[in-house]
Amino acid sequence: MNSNDTIIALATPSGIGAIAVLRLSGKDAIVIADRFFQSIHAKKLIDQQSHTLHLGHVVENDRIIDQVLVSIFKSPNSYTGENVVEISCHGSVYIQQEILQLFLKNGCRMADNGEFTMQAFLNGKMDLSQAEAVADVIASNSAASHQVAIQQMRGGITNELKELRSQLLDFAALIELELDFSGEDVEFADRSKFQELVYTIINTLKRLIDSFAFGNAMKNGIPIAIIGEPNVGKSTLLNTLLKEEKAIVSDIAGTTRDAIEDEVIIEGIAFRFIDTAGIRETEDVVESIGIKKAYEKAEKAQLIIFLIDGKKFVENPVDFKKEIQSIKQQFPEKKLIIIANKIDTLLASDQERLLKASDNILLLSAKKNTGIDILHKELTSLVNKGALSNNETIVTNSRHFEALNNALESIMQVKQGIDIGISSDLFAIDIRECLRHLGNITGEYDVDKDILGHIFSNFCIGK
Amino acid sequence: MNSNDTIIALATPSGIGAIAVLRLSGKDAIVIADRFFQSIHAKKLIDQQSHTLHLGHVVENDRIIDQVLVSIFKSPNSYTGENVVEISCHGSVYIQQEILQLFLKNGCRMADNGEFTMQAFLNGKMDLSQAEAVADVIASNSAASHQVAIQQMRGGITNELKELRSQLLDFAALIELELDFSGEDVEFADRSKFQELVYTIINTLKRLIDSFAFGNAMKNGIPIAIIGEPNVGKSTLLNTLLKEEKAIVSDIAGTTRDAIEDEVIIEGIAFRFIDTAGIRETEDVVESIGIKKAYEKAEKAQLIIFLIDGKKFVENPVDFKKEIQSIKQQFPEKKLIIIANKIDTLLASDQERLLKASDNILLLSAKKNTGIDILHKELTSLVNKGALSNNETIVTNSRHFEALNNALESIMQVKQGIDIGISSDLFAIDIRECLRHLGNITGEYDVDKDILGHIFSNFCIGK
Repeated sequence: MNSNDTIIALATPSGIGAIAVLRLSGKDAIVIADRFFQSIHAKKLIDQQSHTLHLGHVVENDRIIDQVLVSIFKSPNSYTGENVVEISCHGSVYIQQEILQLFLKNGCRMADNGEFTMQAFLNGKMDLSQAEAVADVIASNSAASHQVAIQQMRGGITNELKELRSQLLDFAALIELELDFSGEDVEFADRSKFQELVYTIINTLKRLIDSFAFGNAMKNGIPIAIIGEPNVGKSTLLNTLLKEEKAIVSDIAGTTRDAIEDEVIIEGIAFRFIDTAGIRETEDVVESIGIKKAYEKAEKAQLIIFLIDGKKFVENPVDFKKEIQSIKQQFPEKKLIIIANKIDTLLASDQERLLKASDNILLLSAKKNTGIDILHKELTSLVNKGALSNNETIVTNSRHFEALNNALESIMQVKQGIDIGISSDLFAIDIRECLRHLGNITGEYDVDKDILGHIFSNFCIGK
Repeated sequence: MNSNDTIIALATPSGIGAIAVLRLSGKDAIVIADRFFQSIHAKKLIDQQSHTLHLGHVVENDRIIDQVLVSIFKSPNSYTGENVVEISCHGSVYIQQEILQLFLKNGCRMADNGEFTMQAFLNGKMDLSQAEAVADVIASNSAASHQVAIQQMRGGITNELKELRSQLLDFAALIELELDFSGEDVEFADRSKFQELVYTIINTLKRLIDSFAFGNAMKNGIPIAIIGEPNVGKSTLLNTLLKEEKAIVSDIAGTTRDAIEDEVIIEGIAFRFIDTAGIRETEDVVESIGIKKAYEKAEKAQLIIFLIDGKKFVENPVDFKKEIQSIKQQFPEKKLIIIANKIDTLLASDQERLLKASDNILLLSAKKNTGIDILHKELTSLVNKGALSNNETIVTNSRHFEALNNALESIMQVKQGIDIGISSDLFAIDIRECLRHLGNITGEYDVDKDILGHIFSNFCIGK
């Protein structure tokens, strides 16, 4: 990247619309735009104030390409921190391309993915974790993922870590000072305060690391495996939840073999339901692979729906109670929802018996769409008991997750050092390591160019 | 429509992008936007000047929906002539919808197709023909269609007609004055000047009407039928021109039955090539329908490519010359390009003979992609000999075409009246009719609400 470059890209979605916006950023952005812009008031763009809008035409050699509205943002008060021009043109693909080509021929170059945001980071308009959150904001498709991304973009994790990191930095300096005076056996750093700080950091890091599983689920949808014997109605339940005929439903046991999944947004939270092969003894090779997969999916899911056939249960409650117990033992760490399906075929008295059979059982009929709203409530309440309800920072980015884990590892070394009373020169390097990992999250330490490239390559062009 | 309404719509293409723009228009647009906007400088939008940009957050009950950039345009200096607010938000579909829903819940209503432009027309920001051109500008996909649309949007046809219409209006008033004084046998209107004006109007209308066939072709692509005997390589030529395997090609005569067409843009001009069934005597019912269709397509095309097999021609030039003659007689009014295909199988001397066989013959090999550039040049030069090369107004809108024809009919009645010297009261009504039709184009006469609705229903929402 050359800091003298003026970059350009289409900022709005591609395709035809009422308007499209092209964005230029760079030292010369306003000067270049001015050369091809004829204001209706014969004003020069370079003479205009920042944050103003101007109507006119984009003109190339007397040929009018379009009537446009131009926005000017002067450095440093722009998204990128450089001079920025946004051109709102008519939303024809032809016009978008003509204007783009005009500027590419005349001193601009095409922006890379996320290059505007990378410039914003490099010019100190936002830290790295905020820059990364911009992509998450754009990709967010549910209230939950959106809220987490917006909080991040506003500096969530940065604010959590900034003060702790700055205190740790102070201690690091003091401890390193001790090393310089190591012959003189002085202590600049207050050991008990330092120990307190280390504990606080450990707790904060652990809390942030723990939030990742939840945050990741918010971002990508909470995975829920639907398991149960063949023919209890797992695919019907999936279809009812998705409101479409996603999985093939038949009366033949073993219809589903591949795990079929899709996302549903319920009250702003994305859930990813996974229909699996019915669990039974089978000779069929494909089916057995499917059943193995069902267990794997259940292992990876955050929540398991164990579906039973309500009618069969009533006929033979003892075996079914055993089965429920067995599932609970198989997945002791998972949240489990037991659902008795096909209640449309049951008497009210039988339904009573079902409710008494397990302390956490829902009755529904996937086919008749009864009880689905209760399931929705159960699912959302489980999530809302989690971290979403309060304003805690939630980590959703796996790069941050990794850095937090690395930081935790380093600071644990420091803690051990303190605990066994080793001399500070032995853990000074661990403090530095911890600081480096924390700094990586916000980009305060020089971040490797490859890593930067990787982060921003996930952006769309134009952002 | 209620003039107190505040309308809102997404102005950018739907989908995910770096940014999206929502547009509000109406008396209360700025006030409503202000209620949900928190400027980072704690400024109120209503206190800001027109044509300024403001960074802040869209907030609903303390929940931050997004960080946005808001543009303010104050009436009458806006696209619609009303107060207008444009909100640039992050281009996530979720965010676009959240902001849209927020404003729909709070005093805005969804804009109809083209309603922003309709407001612009109703508020006198542009005349009707200019408003219609806005949709053409957005739909334009080639340099030619774009140029025609831009010229129209800048008032092409309006400028052509305005002065003539105003002069005719003056004469109409004078002639109607004569009617009021009919007992006194006075003449306020100068008959010879009036006659001159009528001739000028007739010539202008005829020229504009004549431009429609061309203008329509510019807008929708110039239709070119490729006809010829079976197996001369029509489908291969189509595929070569389109640069894709659009039509099925085989050695079996009669492979193509349906007319297959697609658009290619050559040097900024859109051509619509139509591959047709090979013309021959056949018993096959489907094929005969195809051959009938081939003739129909040729009838409707602006240009016909008559493709012959170069090799067969050389073997039997006499019959082929007859055939070329026959095609010329069948379509006496069409521009015809004769192409000898498969020249890759011919000796140079045979190619010489082919060139001498007809005064307007191109040699090419569709299969080997030779001679295609010459065909491109031939096609574009035919068009550039037309109206595109100069700056004449070109009519592309069928509503205008109809109004121009109606106006011509009325003014011809006037001319006849003058020619045979009938009294002016008998053609005064025709003058009024002509004025009304001309006024319909620019919307100067009260245009029927249904017609307005029809015009703007072709727009996208958000424009």
